[in-house]
Amino acid sequence: MSNVSISSAVDTARFLEDFHHTSRFGATSGGGIDRQAGTAEHGAVRDWFESRAQEFGFRVETDEIGNIFAYKEWIPGASFVLLGSHLDSQPLGGRFDGTYGVIAALHAAISLDEQVKAGGVEPSYNICVVDWFNEEGARFRPSIMGSGVYTGRWELEETLAISDPDGVTVREALISTGRLGGKVELPVEFYGEIHIEQGRRLERAEIGIAAVSHNWCKRELSVSVIGEQSHTGATLMADRRDALLGAAEVALAVEAVVEDFEAETIVSSVGQFDVEPNSPVVVPRLVELVVDLRANSQEDVDRARDTVLEKFETIARRRNLEIISVESEDREIQHFPQQGIDLVLQSAKDAGQESVVLSTLAGHDAVFINDLMPAVLIFIPSTGGVSHCEREFSSDEDMVTGLQVLANAAARLVTGQLARAGE
Amino acid sequence: MSNVSISSAVDTARFLEDFHHTSRFGATSGGGIDRQAGTAEHGAVRDWFESRAQEFGFRVETDEIGNIFAYKEWIPGASFVLLGSHLDSQPLGGRFDGTYGVIAALHAAISLDEQVKAGGVEPSYNICVVDWFNEEGARFRPSIMGSGVYTGRWELEETLAISDPDGVTVREALISTGRLGGKVELPVEFYGEIHIEQGRRLERAEIGIAAVSHNWCKRELSVSVIGEQSHTGATLMADRRDALLGAAEVALAVEAVVEDFEAETIVSSVGQFDVEPNSPVVVPRLVELVVDLRANSQEDVDRARDTVLEKFETIARRRNLEIISVESEDREIQHFPQQGIDLVLQSAKDAGQESVVLSTLAGHDAVFINDLMPAVLIFIPSTGGVSHCEREFSSDEDMVTGLQVLANAAARLVTGQLARAGE
Repeated sequence: MSNVSISSAVDTARFLEDFHHTSRFGATSGGGIDRQAGTAEHGAVRDWFESRAQEFGFRVETDEIGNIFAYKEWIPGASFVLLGSHLDSQPLGGRFDGTYGVIAALHAAISLDEQVKAGGVEPSYNICVVDWFNEEGARFRPSIMGSGVYTGRWELEETLAISDPDGVTVREALISTGRLGGKVELPVEFYGEIHIEQGRRLERAEIGIAAVSHNWCKRELSVSVIGEQSHTGATLMADRRDALLGAAEVALAVEAVVEDFEAETIVSSVGQFDVEPNSPVVVPRLVELVVDLRANSQEDVDRARDTVLEKFETIARRRNLEIISVESEDREIQHFPQQGIDLVLQSAKDAGQESVVLSTLAGHDAVFINDLMPAVLIFIPSTGGVSHCEREFSSDEDMVTGLQVLANAAARLVTGQLARAGE
Repeated sequence: MSNVSISSAVDTARFLEDFHHTSRFGATSGGGIDRQAGTAEHGAVRDWFESRAQEFGFRVETDEIGNIFAYKEWIPGASFVLLGSHLDSQPLGGRFDGTYGVIAALHAAISLDEQVKAGGVEPSYNICVVDWFNEEGARFRPSIMGSGVYTGRWELEETLAISDPDGVTVREALISTGRLGGKVELPVEFYGEIHIEQGRRLERAEIGIAAVSHNWCKRELSVSVIGEQSHTGATLMADRRDALLGAAEVALAVEAVVEDFEAETIVSSVGQFDVEPNSPVVVPRLVELVVDLRANSQEDVDRARDTVLEKFETIARRRNLEIISVESEDREIQHFPQQGIDLVLQSAKDAGQESVVLSTLAGHDAVFINDLMPAVLIFIPSTGGVSHCEREFSSDEDMVTGLQVLANAAARLVTGQLARAGE
């Protein structure tokens, strides 16, 4: 690969100012943000993103599922390199997850544009920055929604009709935030994304950059535990069919399944758990909960799923309950192209940074986009590995390093290095 | 006691028609009702109750906490006998709980009024029917709210400021249903209530009437299980502090405590259980739940409470969580006056009915009113013992028997038999 490095020319102060500005949108008292997809707070940060990109001369279009594309067409008719992530968050989420990737992408593209105009980079591709709609899936399920529709994994009309717990549809939320756009027809050939690691591996290794090799396998089960409603203050214990107690055992069975596997090769969780009728004096009739299983091997995740399903049957039988499990989301292991990994490692080296190759436990927009075109995914360290919470943190220094490496990777992509490597 | 029996003169068809009419207000597709306190459905059945009482010449007033009083003043200036229960329900609750007591009270009072006018009964007291506000406590906690304010157990202004999960206050709900009334100054000396048993003891014994001797002791704990929010798809198991798993163990510990006691002398439950942030991809940071312990002895319920609190400490330590428990409601064992129990047994005998004396596991308005004045509480059978659910059922025959016994008891009360017995 020929050496194209623009990292030393990146205006890092300008980036940091913009990044920290975004934390004001949906700011929480605990130092995090709450910008669930399609809310007013999410709409506000997206409007800011659009005007900021326009200030730097980007054209901005929103597509039919609310993905925002900000682009520069240096070479009329040429294909695009797309860089981005997402501006939505979990409830009481962190300031870095997704947002860092969008703002770093914008600033990598701005620096690249400056270099192209100054003659330092000669592009074969145009550049576009994307803010994907609803990566988090907290308000509207499934997660990774905007990029999933973009790649054809989800159907547009069905997705627009999905509603949140208050009955508001995706379509309504997009309209209310002014983001129900039209067809966006930009020919895109490569995708790049930078994200916080949301784990401790970089921190433990004291390394600032990772090129991501593949994602862990995920199985999601939507489980209904069905009992019978009765009076807490009148129904004798033997006469009860308590859905909550069955669901408590389900959650503990999901936790216990990891003991069958090697440490740090599997995680299991119950994050959503809704009790009906949820009154202090009524024995619950129904609990609906979501089981999340992820492993570094498909065999392991499938074995874990089979084990918990068997345990659910035992619980149902013993407590005279009905337990219905539906596999609501599968994500198989997918490998990012080796040439893309090499390109990231080289981009880090050009910026004078050490780097490693890691897998990702979590899903990301890049995982879905990789279905459609070669994608690269870069991680920077997360302090303490905590994420999806207000305490989530990455230092300015680590964010700047990441931006510099992303800018180098973007320069390599627009000059066609991944295209040639793939030939 | 002199014999005053009006049971044979009660118009049972008229009662049944009115009772079954009430099931239309807030009717659910599963054959139950959903008339939580202060909702439009609750407001509608209360408006119907007011007009129905007025049709029979009752004067109707609503007090400052939304209790509705419908009364006949036969003897100007004399004190009142009060009969009643409540028209609100649990979410997806049954048609009988509370409503049966209000409609039976109204029809006992109508029959009594007819007998007084015909000269068959010579009253020393006036008669009043009450519909207490929010006995269920499903939407606004605490339960037994209207009668609790009436007896001075709860403070009026504080109670009006209590809000539901959507932030609507009791005051706002009363205003929206037209039931924020003023001071009602009726001198009341005795109280009578009829209710479904919500248990299986009468059904098993094949007996139609119980006089209630005392209520079980209750301890309610509001428990917060506090962990740390993190990402289900990125946080390794060892790095988690999962509030939901701790709360699952709390619920199972609450269930297990009854094993330390004799069967059918104690019940324990967790009915309300709220998870934060309740997202499928976030390890929960907080669960707030309500523990309900009831026993036929104060010593037992206190020992059960101490045992679960110890178990909570062990769970918190082992899982590195914080568990905070606050005793949010105590209800001590209270005995109804023996003369009132005798009066009910005699009223049943006069109606040709067998009867027994039972305790009540559940709280009732009568338990609170008994703080202030002699109260009697009568039970009729519940099919299968199920309650606080759509399947709750009592037969027309059992309801009519109960009404006849209540009418006899009311006749004894207004002719001063309990007053004389207490002297």
